[in-house]
Amino acid sequence: MDDFSTTEIIEVLGTISFAISGTFAAVQKRLDPFGVLIIAFVTSIGGGTVRDLLLGDTPVAWMRDVNYCLLILVTSILTLFFKHQIKKFKVTLFLFDSLGLGLFTLVGVQKGIIFGLEPGICIALGTITGCFGGVIRDTLLNTIPLIFRKEIYATACIAGGMLYFGMLYFNLAADLAKIIVIVFIVTLRILVVRYKLALPRFGY
Amino acid sequence: MDDFSTTEIIEVLGTISFAISGTFAAVQKRLDPFGVLIIAFVTSIGGGTVRDLLLGDTPVAWMRDVNYCLLILVTSILTLFFKHQIKKFKVTLFLFDSLGLGLFTLVGVQKGIIFGLEPGICIALGTITGCFGGVIRDTLLNTIPLIFRKEIYATACIAGGMLYFGMLYFNLAADLAKIIVIVFIVTLRILVVRYKLALPRFGY
Amino acid sequence: MDDFSTTEIIEVLGTISFAISGTFAAVQKRLDPFGVLIIAFVTSIGGGTVRDLLLGDTPVAWMRDVNYCLLILVTSILTLFFKHQIKKFKVTLFLFDSLGLGLFTLVGVQKGIIFGLEPGICIALGTITGCFGGVIRDTLLNTIPLIFRKEIYATACIAGGMLYFGMLYFNLAADLAKIIVIVFIVTLRILVVRYKLALPRFGY
Repeated sequence: MDDFSTTEIIEVLGTISFAISGTFAAVQKRLDPFGVLIIAFVTSIGGGTVRDLLLGDTPVAWMRDVNYCLLILVTSILTLFFKHQIKKFKVTLFLFDSLGLGLFTLVGVQKGIIFGLEPGICIALGTITGCFGGVIRDTLLNTIPLIFRKEIYATACIAGGMLYFGMLYFNLAADLAKIIVIVFIVTLRILVVRYKLALPRFGY
Repeated sequence: MDDFSTTEIIEVLGTISFAISGTFAAVQKRLDPFGVLIIAFVTSIGGGTVRDLLLGDTPVAWMRDVNYCLLILVTSILTLFFKHQIKKFKVTLFLFDSLGLGLFTLVGVQKGIIFGLEPGICIALGTITGCFGGVIRDTLLNTIPLIFRKEIYATACIAGGMLYFGMLYFNLAADLAKIIVIVFIVTLRILVVRYKLALPRFGY
Repeated sequence: MDDFSTTEIIEVLGTISFAISGTFAAVQKRLDPFGVLIIAFVTSIGGGTVRDLLLGDTPVAWMRDVNYCLLILVTSILTLFFKHQIKKFKVTLFLFDSLGLGLFTLVGVQKGIIFGLEPGICIALGTITGCFGGVIRDTLLNTIPLIFRKEIYATACIAGGMLYFGMLYFNLAADLAKIIVIVFIVTLRILVVRYKLALPRFGY
């Protein structure tokens, strides 16, 4: 029960983070209010929707619980109102995107475990849940998805997922392991972008 | 029984409308005959397929009823034969796209009601059913999807969906309500494009 | 039983072929090692995933059998090591892409037959299974999908599927029919590209 509510809190926080990052990205592209809401919505639910489709857990999550839709709507509208207070626009967008990435990766890994899938597949599910919202957002806004080329985006999710299974293996308390993984993914991503780290490329 | 056949007629008319609009759009881009058929097919079934996937109502509709595939094939071929008779090409494409939008929105809302989903989710399903065929068509043909930026595309679907639930609330006959909603969506979209109405944008 | 293992061998060979073609395509675009793996993976599983989603056969195939993921990983890494030995890069990429196309088309048609769908729908499923991996690969790598415009890509799948049902109708041994269809699709595609054959286009 306690474990359930931790995951639920993580899911709510991830939904809020991605709704904010989606709203910021859409405002930057000067979409009309309706377009902004659509992008906020898609960024927030994209990863979970792809995950649920692949698992066959349908109707997908946001159709069964209208509260998530309301949460995204309210978050997006509040973000629009407070956007003039925010100075470092790009940094704020990036921070909330990283936060959502860490939170949703864990939600995806957890769901894979509940479905009885193997650790490698659970990590893939976590990566999909974490990354796809941002990928769809970037594709719709016609920017090259960040996941390809510039940053070690998905790598952070995979490293985080492996760390989580490592900690479970050594019998760490599940709630503590979750918080460590989220902090790990967010920190790793920020460090990578801050110091412009990247994997070497294969030339042809 | 009577209600069922009305929905069925609406679905057939929507399939034909979108097959025509898809054929026109593909011919405009000078695709080969096979490419034209693919685009006509994808435009016609795209919205319903995404809807069925999200609902988990699989195998998706067009796989269970081969008649829809034949209907699209025949419509597309007939459109290719008669295209030289048509003078105002862009206007015709736009009219059939609007007609399909109105018809399919209603089909999607109806399906959501049958699955016992909440009104807000039903309207979202209707919007997805109405819009996604056109979005996939535009994406494949490498034009910016009309849904973002230029027109209040999805807004017409949402307004129509809300009107439908409003009329059901006041106990209007279901068949009459359906026809009113379709006429409303088609008219609203045509008026918006004709008079270049748009929601104001948020600047950064 | 014997029939089952033939299909299984075909699926393994198709997975390897597409993993190689995906790796080549990604290396050509100078992606980092992680990006190369992602593209190899997506090319290999893309067609089957879309097929399973449309059928509602979830969790999708690669989630249920981690061996396919390992097979793709090993194939992709080996390809990276041996790439300097390969001289005619584009030709090799094209050959493995054609091979995967033929093999996966048959796998898709077979799965449609197992699900009891009509021949026309089975052929559509085969075409989707064969083509979608390459379409997703090309979309992610930001090249125009080969399926539209340049080559009779999907047409080879459809012709192969029709040939398969023709041979089944005349009671040809299933295993022999399968091998003939695969050779037919691969040969047809190579001939079309070699001699630059194309369907005539409709002008506007």
